[in-house]
Amino acid sequence: MKQSQLFTKTRKTAPKDEMSKNAQLLIRAGFMHKEMAGVYSFLPLGLRVLNNVVNIIRQEMNGIGGQEISLASLQKKETWEKTNRWSDGEVDVWFKTKLKNQTELGLAFTHEEALTVLMTNFVSSHKDLPFSAYQFQTKFRNETRAKSGIMRTREFIMKDLYSFTKTQEEHNIFYEKAKEAYEKIFQKMNIGEKTFVTFASGGTFSKYSHEFQTICDAGEDIIYVSKEKNIAINQEVFTDEVCSDLGVDKKECVEQKSAEVGNIFSLGTKFSDAHSLTFRDAQGKDVPVVMGSYGIGPARVMGVVAELLSDEKGLVWPESISPFHAHLISLKNDEKAQEIYEKLKKKGVETLFDDRDVAPGAKFADADLIGCPWRVVVSDRSLEAGGVEVKNRKKEESEIVSVTDLYEKIGK
Amino acid sequence: MKQSQLFTKTRKTAPKDEMSKNAQLLIRAGFMHKEMAGVYSFLPLGLRVLNNVVNIIRQEMNGIGGQEISLASLQKKETWEKTNRWSDGEVDVWFKTKLKNQTELGLAFTHEEALTVLMTNFVSSHKDLPFSAYQFQTKFRNETRAKSGIMRTREFIMKDLYSFTKTQEEHNIFYEKAKEAYEKIFQKMNIGEKTFVTFASGGTFSKYSHEFQTICDAGEDIIYVSKEKNIAINQEVFTDEVCSDLGVDKKECVEQKSAEVGNIFSLGTKFSDAHSLTFRDAQGKDVPVVMGSYGIGPARVMGVVAELLSDEKGLVWPESISPFHAHLISLKNDEKAQEIYEKLKKKGVETLFDDRDVAPGAKFADADLIGCPWRVVVSDRSLEAGGVEVKNRKKEESEIVSVTDLYEKIGK
Repeated sequence: MKQSQLFTKTRKTAPKDEMSKNAQLLIRAGFMHKEMAGVYSFLPLGLRVLNNVVNIIRQEMNGIGGQEISLASLQKKETWEKTNRWSDGEVDVWFKTKLKNQTELGLAFTHEEALTVLMTNFVSSHKDLPFSAYQFQTKFRNETRAKSGIMRTREFIMKDLYSFTKTQEEHNIFYEKAKEAYEKIFQKMNIGEKTFVTFASGGTFSKYSHEFQTICDAGEDIIYVSKEKNIAINQEVFTDEVCSDLGVDKKECVEQKSAEVGNIFSLGTKFSDAHSLTFRDAQGKDVPVVMGSYGIGPARVMGVVAELLSDEKGLVWPESISPFHAHLISLKNDEKAQEIYEKLKKKGVETLFDDRDVAPGAKFADADLIGCPWRVVVSDRSLEAGGVEVKNRKKEESEIVSVTDLYEKIGK
Repeated sequence: MKQSQLFTKTRKTAPKDEMSKNAQLLIRAGFMHKEMAGVYSFLPLGLRVLNNVVNIIRQEMNGIGGQEISLASLQKKETWEKTNRWSDGEVDVWFKTKLKNQTELGLAFTHEEALTVLMTNFVSSHKDLPFSAYQFQTKFRNETRAKSGIMRTREFIMKDLYSFTKTQEEHNIFYEKAKEAYEKIFQKMNIGEKTFVTFASGGTFSKYSHEFQTICDAGEDIIYVSKEKNIAINQEVFTDEVCSDLGVDKKECVEQKSAEVGNIFSLGTKFSDAHSLTFRDAQGKDVPVVMGSYGIGPARVMGVVAELLSDEKGLVWPESISPFHAHLISLKNDEKAQEIYEKLKKKGVETLFDDRDVAPGAKFADADLIGCPWRVVVSDRSLEAGGVEVKNRKKEESEIVSVTDLYEKIGK
């Protein structure tokens, strides 16, 4: 895309009320707009990153057999009363609203209840199981404080997958597959090394749930990392008992600030019991379905990447989720640059072409702030030296590459 | 995808409280689930159709230079008060909610105000214009009655594009481009012939707005079609004056029930005046931006297609938006069918493979109900006759096609 046509512009300073680094950078680079505390809109560059994150997650969810759906946000009281999750005393993040006839509705903060009710239409026999369904859908959460940029918001897309299985054993097999898929997802976004499977409270559902916690100063959680076992334990359950249960030496665990980028829950039959989601087993007996739920917030992941992989000049996107693969900059060599732009497009290299009539310094600063992996500069000097000047966003030095070799140099 | 793995099932009867044909068929075929009146969730087959509709629209919006964004649903009171659209007296479709600190918020039913405010961050010079931005985003509308299935709902994805131009002339040029793009969209979904550019009230903005009305018994509107001029006039403005203005003979216009599948509005400077969205022109004068807005509800379009192109056996999807291109049915010839399934997948033909262990009659009925364009049956009889039995959903007769020629017969 031509930058002259992009309606967003970068800005030198972040809004004064924005305390988090991820939002400061994303707003300065024109990726997002703040509607109010904890509520952001996605602008063209930001939406491209978000969609890339979504597509990585989608690929892995399809890989484990997930079927994509999209549930409604508006929710009936009755659906949630059965699991005791309607009252604001029990769930303190509800946004509630009303129909014209004064019927109270809620805006879904998660979808276990709604999907369990839905599945009673489709599950009756043991032959209908196992399966899983997932969505990328807007969740609303009435957070009291929202000050971590896009890492904790009041309205956000969540990927939530739900599994439906016949037995605990069958559930465990799927649960492990999901865990592996999650690990792949975070690896693909270059935060795999800093992300730990973290033992957390299983709530009323099971002994433990598993969080995926990424070590990050801007995170709101505290975890204790066992390098030896390559796992972590959430502060809330970091006890002698749990450490011994997991075979971890408590004294060797390192305390870290972290951000929860995903979580997976064994739900047992809590929701299927409440909503009578049962199946007839091979012996003709009605048995409740064993469920699991598996969440990732794509925007939070995007925020964590912005926090961790940025530098003093701006954002530094991994190739897998960058808004564009290459940032092509023309320094008064528009014709040659246009030619290269067309060539890259033809090869399928997503390119942001800075064809604007602004000073070279401003173009370089924007390229650093926006953070695409490859900067390609076309100038008199580069052409005299034999081609274009190519620089990887993570490196200091640049090199001259002939136009012929450009694709080989930067192409995926 | 293998039908044995699809978690949805078809059902013989529709829910008793569902009066509209589109919802009856879509629920029976397992495309959708009704959460409550006017609120539906999309299941795997339904989401595939919806996404196909979305992608056709996206392609055309990109084609006219639209830049994709995604705005927040949660809206601040102040943003809407300036245009006098906050009070429930003025706008009777608001869903309102509250932050913990009792701050009132609204759930966006449209986004003119929000986007105008956002653009004040990016528009300052005449060089920044013209441009347009669009989104596929959930709208909430507190409809008093919601009884037309997915043709009028309380929560739905809307494609809304907004244009920002320097002058009325520049606006008019874009407006015509958008109108052409809309015509292409409806043609691609096989409802072009029944869809008319319809003159409607321009409200406080301009003399006329343009609706795209599709002739449809389930529609909630009345239009008067001038076959001669290939336009229509909405009942609300079907006066002698308007007819003469448009050069239409009032007596020759035919009254029709219709559904509004799209609308485009010239907004003038109403929103830019209210929110001080101005640009400095070439003479250094601050001038308000001229705006337009352009809406399509993908689910409503899907509903209209379901109403118009279905028959007594079920849905009949156009190839462009069908959940799958081919419905492959195995009648106890699973190995051969599996081979054909793999072949079609390899060729990129999206195929629903009915590998279930159910009676042939049930498979045929499901294929008709689900409505993919091509039914391909593999049976002993078809193999003896030299291949597979191919039937187009719109036709009665089938024919035997050799496996070698299958792709040529049904491939896109």
